[in-house]
Amino acid sequence: PGKKVLIVYAHQEPKSFNGSLLKIAVEELTKQGCSVMVSDLYAMQFEPRATRNDIVGHLHNSEAFNYAVETWEAYKRGGLSKDLVEEQKKVQEADLLIFQFPLFWFSMPAILKGWMDRVLVQGFAYDLSKVYDGGLLQDKLSLFSFTTGGSQEMYSNEGISGDIRYVLWPMQHGIMHFCGVKVLEPHICYAPEHVSEENRKEMLAAWTQRLKTLWKEEPIDCSPEWYFK
Amino acid sequence: PGKKVLIVYAHQEPKSFNGSLLKIAVEELTKQGCSVMVSDLYAMQFEPRATRNDIVGHLHNSEAFNYAVETWEAYKRGGLSKDLVEEQKKVQEADLLIFQFPLFWFSMPAILKGWMDRVLVQGFAYDLSKVYDGGLLQDKLSLFSFTTGGSQEMYSNEGISGDIRYVLWPMQHGIMHFCGVKVLEPHICYAPEHVSEENRKEMLAAWTQRLKTLWKEEPIDCSPEWYFK
Repeated sequence: PGKKVLIVYAHQEPKSFNGSLLKIAVEELTKQGCSVMVSDLYAMQFEPRATRNDIVGHLHNSEAFNYAVETWEAYKRGGLSKDLVEEQKKVQEADLLIFQFPLFWFSMPAILKGWMDRVLVQGFAYDLSKVYDGGLLQDKLSLFSFTTGGSQEMYSNEGISGDIRYVLWPMQHGIMHFCGVKVLEPHICYAPEHVSEENRKEMLAAWTQRLKTLWKEEPIDCSPEWYFK
Repeated sequence: PGKKVLIVYAHQEPKSFNGSLLKIAVEELTKQGCSVMVSDLYAMQFEPRATRNDIVGHLHNSEAFNYAVETWEAYKRGGLSKDLVEEQKKVQEADLLIFQFPLFWFSMPAILKGWMDRVLVQGFAYDLSKVYDGGLLQDKLSLFSFTTGGSQEMYSNEGISGDIRYVLWPMQHGIMHFCGVKVLEPHICYAPEHVSEENRKEMLAAWTQRLKTLWKEEPIDCSPEWYFK
């Protein structure tokens, strides 16, 4: 109760299974007394491309554009574009970040990757030597909640797509841990399009159930061992 | 000689180190008698968002939008948007796909991820049970050529960012191998912004050198063992 949650949501269709998972999270967390913010990326037509447009006014070096340097400098002087500032405000306020999306090509949809690329700039999310456990977004939790096309068997150690944890490494360790954000167990719904309506309902119920005790969970140990044994 | 190469390039600045790597590849491969196509994603203002706009005309199911289903159906009836059809033509013609980009957050920049999300649709790149070694883009090679911010030490087994091969799994196995494309050794330039001008020149020379014998290389064994030992 009183906790703030930002859900960054990347699906085009409210009637989708991802849409249902979003709805459940908003309802359940609100019921708990949390304040829930939602960044509905497709609805916002969120810009995924990292370009000069992200910097308001003059460039630090207009001779050769370096996105990382320019956004860092712009952050320091308050010169990032409005859409980024708004997302950063939401992140700053949040105790928990939930990313809700369908797995696309072993990763996030580009629109969500663009949110990571553009919002988590140097100075805001990390800084010189302030990375990983020293990252600037400490005391926050994150949770990757996603659906897959492939089955759980495919995403197993013996399966053709390999252990699902392999795809979590860049997202959980490379992004969240890098920024100092703690990582809760991912929530994975395998192949909702290929199971029965009954199974789908069970998956939705399981998400509701998990959210009820979410705040009691311990973060995972986000080390290589967790991912690769 | 006579081979066709598509370079999908994702950097905003021609004067960047990535820009130099692109220039070298175009020059060296052209010199060899290859025909080189370049998709310069930022210059093209390539759209990374997977939306309804990718389908020309009617939807298969306008009640609930499903991107994977809609692009599959649109592909079959020749109803994908023009920018996608053009990229697919280039892929179809190419013997080798080179992806040239700066590593952003342990992965591709969103604009390049969007190219993967939108171009490699079902029916074109893979199909029902036509995946991995049975994927539809067989007899093609791919090569991921990228720069990092972190040093080689950071991206080692003992380093804080873990073995660089961990980040290659989603891109090389999850995307290219999934579509049946063979994968050459990646070409990685570590932290070009943090080394001496002399070192940068050596890195560029090494890329030229590698390209000279590229067509003699054997693809990697794109199995979990290559990535995770």
